[in-house]
Amino acid sequence: MPIVNGYAAPAAGAPLQPFSFERRELRDDDVDIAIHYCGVCHSDIHQARDEWGGSMFPMVPGHEIAGVVTAVGKAVTKFKVGDRVGVGCFVDSCTKCKTRDVDNEQYMAGLIQTYNSLEADGVTPTFGGYSSRIAVKEGYVLSIPDSLPLDAAAPLLCAGITLYSPLKHWKVGPGKKVAIVGLGGLGHMGVKLAHAMGAEVTVLSQTLNKEADGKRMGADHFFATSDLQTFVDLQGYFDVIINTVGASIDWTDYLNLLALDGSMVLVGIPESPAPVHAFALVGGRRSLSGSMIGSIKETQEMLDFCGEHGIVSDIELIKIQDINEAYERVVRSDVRFRFVIDMSSLEAA
Amino acid sequence: MPIVNGYAAPAAGAPLQPFSFERRELRDDDVDIAIHYCGVCHSDIHQARDEWGGSMFPMVPGHEIAGVVTAVGKAVTKFKVGDRVGVGCFVDSCTKCKTRDVDNEQYMAGLIQTYNSLEADGVTPTFGGYSSRIAVKEGYVLSIPDSLPLDAAAPLLCAGITLYSPLKHWKVGPGKKVAIVGLGGLGHMGVKLAHAMGAEVTVLSQTLNKEADGKRMGADHFFATSDLQTFVDLQGYFDVIINTVGASIDWTDYLNLLALDGSMVLVGIPESPAPVHAFALVGGRRSLSGSMIGSIKETQEMLDFCGEHGIVSDIELIKIQDINEAYERVVRSDVRFRFVIDMSSLEAA
Repeated sequence: MPIVNGYAAPAAGAPLQPFSFERRELRDDDVDIAIHYCGVCHSDIHQARDEWGGSMFPMVPGHEIAGVVTAVGKAVTKFKVGDRVGVGCFVDSCTKCKTRDVDNEQYMAGLIQTYNSLEADGVTPTFGGYSSRIAVKEGYVLSIPDSLPLDAAAPLLCAGITLYSPLKHWKVGPGKKVAIVGLGGLGHMGVKLAHAMGAEVTVLSQTLNKEADGKRMGADHFFATSDLQTFVDLQGYFDVIINTVGASIDWTDYLNLLALDGSMVLVGIPESPAPVHAFALVGGRRSLSGSMIGSIKETQEMLDFCGEHGIVSDIELIKIQDINEAYERVVRSDVRFRFVIDMSSLEAA
Repeated sequence: MPIVNGYAAPAAGAPLQPFSFERRELRDDDVDIAIHYCGVCHSDIHQARDEWGGSMFPMVPGHEIAGVVTAVGKAVTKFKVGDRVGVGCFVDSCTKCKTRDVDNEQYMAGLIQTYNSLEADGVTPTFGGYSSRIAVKEGYVLSIPDSLPLDAAAPLLCAGITLYSPLKHWKVGPGKKVAIVGLGGLGHMGVKLAHAMGAEVTVLSQTLNKEADGKRMGADHFFATSDLQTFVDLQGYFDVIINTVGASIDWTDYLNLLALDGSMVLVGIPESPAPVHAFALVGGRRSLSGSMIGSIKETQEMLDFCGEHGIVSDIELIKIQDINEAYERVVRSDVRFRFVIDMSSLEAA
């Protein structure tokens, strides 16, 4: 079995460090990928620190993988050596269901995540993209359009689809007023995507510090949530609010910004439950909803959409040796707007 | 100005007592109604006790009004003397908007409620159905089908429409699995309506005490929420949950009973905010929503539907003199399933 180099968290909350491990031999339906870049998602940190419970160690995080195909199994038909490809949050979905619901597989109980999960044998841990290569079943590999640079495309595999899917599901487009709460790794993708879909886009950020960035990305309006007047002025204004903030905030204040039949969709997950006042929902037939990544089919659709519109993430490229410092900066929201690891730094070590 | 007899709460939480007051002279577009019956809604109690804030006293509650037309203004075209009619939760909607959104007027800011509200002049208080007669603008008067008894039809004007509207909005019908949480005044209407719409209906009640009643009304299944196994067995089962419980309960437990894309709709309003865990929403693209009564157009549609299907409320008919005891019993959930005041008792006083 081939040995692969990467970085792993040896235990909950411990700094990530070099780690070598075995990947499986290439199967007939596998695509072997040299990982060039991997995005750093806040959920990597939540899981490496076991903040959601159930983490398995050692853990090799990383589910925003961009690279190039180096080999294919003999049954593979969609990919060939040299193709530019991506891998997102999951690498198999059919461990419990006999059929694959291609539109909603991300919600299946039997989903196998790219890392911090067990393979279909129920024993072998999955290891993610903070590593030199990965073998993935053909059906879970995405094509990255030639027009997009691989490094800045990597975050599309999680941050991109996490915003694209609810924007499509809640029918965002021309004539719709959309708010994006939080202008971080998720939020900045939401602004770009919603703008490209033709909606009127408003950013609701803690301060006005990132206003110029937000408007450059396509925001029509930018408001500070630290200014209470924001919640007065925007009462009943939005058709859809996508809330990317993973910290506990008062959802009721935001629900009151929705128009009749409006929805606020959570894509960030606070560690603890947050209070909701029924009046804010009942008084305008509003909804508080949630959405989680997207299907492989929808992820490919999103990548093609980004290819057409020239949409990628705003990134800071780092070496793998700087990953622990990057984690600290993500927690402080000190990144514009996504860290991406240059995996060539792994060889240099 | 005609003097009317009724019962009023003189102050927040004080017992209701006999009260005489003036009603307006009949206007050209008014329908004058002799009130025969008025249902007792839990929100009458919330408002008479000022539990939601902003109550005005003296207050004559009552917004489940059934009676007979005794006179009409000269511009009235839809009603004539002798017609069997009803009045629900509001008597005007256009104090702020120039146009009347007939599909969604119940959500308008300028809505004038049947009681505990001010008329369009901003000065005159509205007084509700715990009284002998009321004059209401033609556009806010409903026709009660001949096939329905007036006393048991009265609760349709609030409890009926409060359940009918979300059941229709969330597309309940054949092939849909619906849960009704709480088998009280609201819930029992939900069971009858959802069953008549062709859905599979499950009651989630604190105990199994009302199981025979629930099944007689059309429930296919009946589970006790005091049995924790209920929340294990029914995980991911329902397309729609209508939550009629006005007390604070853990919404997260119920959200986990929803299937992919399912919605829990609140029609009861707890006094304080309740905690919601984002995982329950994000993990299945679920929604927590709210719904408030329905439009006049939809209320008429509901009454016609009930006429066709022979649906009325299960009631306990009381004298107005017993209203304070009835309030105590409603608070204890000791009523099967709705109190209706026989307004002829007012004359006997």
